[in-house]
Amino acid sequence: MKKIVLGIDFGSSAVRVLTMEQESGKVLNSVEQIYSEGDNGVLTSDNVHLARQSATDYVKSMEIALQKSKEKNKQIGIDMSSVTGIGVDATGSTPLPVKSDLTPLSEISEFKDNLNAYSWMWKDHTSHEEAIFITNKITELRPEYLSTIGGAYSSEWFWAKILHCRNIDKKAFDAADSWVELSDFIPGVLAGVKNITKLKRNVCAAGHKGLYNAKWGGFPDLEFIDALNPDLVKVAKSLPKEAFSIEHTSGELSKEWADKVGIKAGIPIAMGILDAHSGAIGSGIKDGSLVKIIGTSTCDLVLGDIKNKDTSIEGVAGVATESVLPEYFGIEAGQSAVGDILNWFINNVLNKTKTHAELTKLAEYLKPGESGLLGLDWNNGNRNILTDPLLSGLILGQSLLTKDFEIYRALIESTAFGARRIIEHMESQGVVINEVVNCGGISQKNPLFMQIYADVINKPMKIAAIDETVALGAALMGAHVAYKGEGKDVSYNDLQDKSCEILEKVYNPNTNAVEVYENLYQIYLKLHDSFGVKGTKIEMYSVMKDLIEIKNNVSIIA
Amino acid sequence: MKKIVLGIDFGSSAVRVLTMEQESGKVLNSVEQIYSEGDNGVLTSDNVHLARQSATDYVKSMEIALQKSKEKNKQIGIDMSSVTGIGVDATGSTPLPVKSDLTPLSEISEFKDNLNAYSWMWKDHTSHEEAIFITNKITELRPEYLSTIGGAYSSEWFWAKILHCRNIDKKAFDAADSWVELSDFIPGVLAGVKNITKLKRNVCAAGHKGLYNAKWGGFPDLEFIDALNPDLVKVAKSLPKEAFSIEHTSGELSKEWADKVGIKAGIPIAMGILDAHSGAIGSGIKDGSLVKIIGTSTCDLVLGDIKNKDTSIEGVAGVATESVLPEYFGIEAGQSAVGDILNWFINNVLNKTKTHAELTKLAEYLKPGESGLLGLDWNNGNRNILTDPLLSGLILGQSLLTKDFEIYRALIESTAFGARRIIEHMESQGVVINEVVNCGGISQKNPLFMQIYADVINKPMKIAAIDETVALGAALMGAHVAYKGEGKDVSYNDLQDKSCEILEKVYNPNTNAVEVYENLYQIYLKLHDSFGVKGTKIEMYSVMKDLIEIKNNVSIIA
Repeated sequence: MKKIVLGIDFGSSAVRVLTMEQESGKVLNSVEQIYSEGDNGVLTSDNVHLARQSATDYVKSMEIALQKSKEKNKQIGIDMSSVTGIGVDATGSTPLPVKSDLTPLSEISEFKDNLNAYSWMWKDHTSHEEAIFITNKITELRPEYLSTIGGAYSSEWFWAKILHCRNIDKKAFDAADSWVELSDFIPGVLAGVKNITKLKRNVCAAGHKGLYNAKWGGFPDLEFIDALNPDLVKVAKSLPKEAFSIEHTSGELSKEWADKVGIKAGIPIAMGILDAHSGAIGSGIKDGSLVKIIGTSTCDLVLGDIKNKDTSIEGVAGVATESVLPEYFGIEAGQSAVGDILNWFINNVLNKTKTHAELTKLAEYLKPGESGLLGLDWNNGNRNILTDPLLSGLILGQSLLTKDFEIYRALIESTAFGARRIIEHMESQGVVINEVVNCGGISQKNPLFMQIYADVINKPMKIAAIDETVALGAALMGAHVAYKGEGKDVSYNDLQDKSCEILEKVYNPNTNAVEVYENLYQIYLKLHDSFGVKGTKIEMYSVMKDLIEIKNNVSIIA
Repeated sequence: MKKIVLGIDFGSSAVRVLTMEQESGKVLNSVEQIYSEGDNGVLTSDNVHLARQSATDYVKSMEIALQKSKEKNKQIGIDMSSVTGIGVDATGSTPLPVKSDLTPLSEISEFKDNLNAYSWMWKDHTSHEEAIFITNKITELRPEYLSTIGGAYSSEWFWAKILHCRNIDKKAFDAADSWVELSDFIPGVLAGVKNITKLKRNVCAAGHKGLYNAKWGGFPDLEFIDALNPDLVKVAKSLPKEAFSIEHTSGELSKEWADKVGIKAGIPIAMGILDAHSGAIGSGIKDGSLVKIIGTSTCDLVLGDIKNKDTSIEGVAGVATESVLPEYFGIEAGQSAVGDILNWFINNVLNKTKTHAELTKLAEYLKPGESGLLGLDWNNGNRNILTDPLLSGLILGQSLLTKDFEIYRALIESTAFGARRIIEHMESQGVVINEVVNCGGISQKNPLFMQIYADVINKPMKIAAIDETVALGAALMGAHVAYKGEGKDVSYNDLQDKSCEILEKVYNPNTNAVEVYENLYQIYLKLHDSFGVKGTKIEMYSVMKDLIEIKNNVSIIA
């Protein structure tokens, strides 16, 4: 029986399990289980910034997904007892409050109806005031932190969320013994960890979201945490001294979980990782690649030279040692809504009366600039390069003839302009980007989207061949620790070479489109800086006129 | 048999005929005929600024409407031979090129397929470059004109359209012997005028759109017209020396038209008038009233003291002697799209999957500021106070939870802010506005719309009781000339007193809403000035943040 490894991927609305042959690196199958609570797993309230999830839902959904995987493998004659290693990735920063035995606070009867006791999903922006507060405290007390977080602490991150819980719901805060990132919680659950002090924390989430850095001895010192709020010292004390990269195991599979699906107890589970980082690995990230994981939001990942000890890059989400691959810095940036903006337009504005495919087909007939529209992709705030959740969407240029599909295209374009802004910003600080490798459903399903990105960014857009690069990354982690268990040190590059393929179809920039988009991008920058950068005063009088002129010129060429 | 008069109203998409008893002023009935060509009568092209109509369509539709009126009157025992006078109003500036015998150029076989030979509808903005050119020529050569046109000549007006035709289609221009406003063309058709030099021109269209003013001896002098373009001198020469107000008749009904519907030949036809001005009369306009005609676009009309010889008011569409009622200045301003913006959203964005009534019902549950959205009502440019067709719509503040009905409400609010900007601008120049009387379908059908206007403008909103104030105004004109025919001089005020009623329901400002809208209006002004006023540099950084704060405050109060 061939050895297989599993990649378990906790996304925003579903958990996936991917099965890969350990030796050949061949992907055999994958299954999905959509979360059952709330709206595809997301629990909301009147507060538009709030987005929570249920740990019970995560674990139940994972169990169902593993059963589905068992069935699927059985169909091809493979038994789950052949599993030799498991890798886990999850969204983040998605911390949840837990008791000292890792029981989620939301499972304590007193807190079952209290959303603050649930998982605080990555896109939860309720903590924007705390993020500003923490940024100010860092600037004042630990300015060295700034260089690793792109200059500002985000409302999406670990400490901001914990502090917000402390500020608005002391009862829930007091009842929790620690807070755990989802990417550590799941490996802990699988390994049957019952003591929070024994739970290993992954360097990816810790480094990008939790202010962890070996330079200053790990997580922030207690004096700094005390300055944020003395009550948080309890949480800081519950964290380990060291966090680990995916070179390491997080533990071994417990008998309880082994028995549930017939896997052998004791097989190694890799350290967890954030989903985007896993996707970068599954997309074959290497020196000079920007891997763009395009989903509801977008995450950009680039590897940085670890010999370059200066990790300071402003305006990105973060820079953390070995957060993607061992022996590299992981540089992370992203946009807080991409697919989500298109979904918003279809679901909330058009009430699902048209599909993505229908609107895309109509939008394909438009030339760049022909709609006369321009938008800001800030419906969910701006993660990079502004790191400001208190921004919102904007669209302008509407006439009385503007059509739904023109708006749809303008929304795609707005996300492409946002993507270009990030790339230019990285390049201006010496980051080398030779190629862009895209993954995520949109990159495979929507040629218009990818062509617009090629034309706006003016670089060829490559696509990872497999659908589930994120789950594949997790499977590669499973393989890595499986080999480790056999006493073999197989590098991630070697694992990637076997499994990570690029589609033959590459989207190359079209010269005419590049030219028009260059003009539109300059107008986008005016809007971007005017509404997004404090102290900016720009004359906007020409904006609408220039768009009309571009539109008219494009129409004449037709 | 009681004497009756007819008001014939040429709107943007239909012609209406209203029957009124001459003596009692009682409205008996009204009928409508939607134009048959194009999209509800509007002929369009790829150029979003183009909007044309067919003179053939106008005349055919009028004949059908008169037949319908005949039927309807027959049902109540009234014969069309009782008609004693006819008034006509029409949209404008809606000029059409004609041959010397008043045949529309579009009816000459050579030009049947040439949209430039058709009627250039009021909302046709193809002539924006010519409008700027004419404004510059006026500033240079005849600065005295500026005071009557609010400081800028509009792309919607007579001379700009004629000059544009000359510039882009000399063949069509050369084939025309003159250009006629629709509000003069129809009375001419009814009177059987076959010689363009005999056609009387109404002072309302001439004064507001054609640079006519008795101060400088009528239409612009030939030297000025020659400076615009020597070819236009031909058109100027075809215009009469004097234009007339609705004190006067334009002619008598021809035998041909009398026979068509059984009206007596020879009855008086009043001078034509622009539809908005007719609506103001039908709404009972008097000293200190602002009559707001809310339709696809909005027109605001106020009467000015004729003893005040200084007619200079900047930033309104125009000021013209006796253009509404005799012995007053007519001060006209307006917004180029109001109902049209709401129709656009439903027809072009939502693809008619929801109705105005459905969206209004949902939007009623929102409190001011609760959507977090703010818009600029410029989808069709800005008529006043910016007089700039090269502007476009804008909406900002979208989150991923923003709903269709929130956008719908924000669009209504954007038009209300635009309306307030005009009123404040007039008041700042000494125009007295004691009451706002609204008419047009929206004012009667949409209580939410009217309440938002009351709250944004912070004045009580009154509503004209009758649906068809515009056609009623035309009927009052018919009555006026009918009495004249009998040797009686019955004043318009006396005619209005009999026919013009206000609904009991008055929309009064709500204190809490006024306060929130005051804050939103200040943000609107930032957008308005930033995108609309040349040389303006405003820090926009707070705009999105302030909207989020207002939204959060409103939600908390809930």
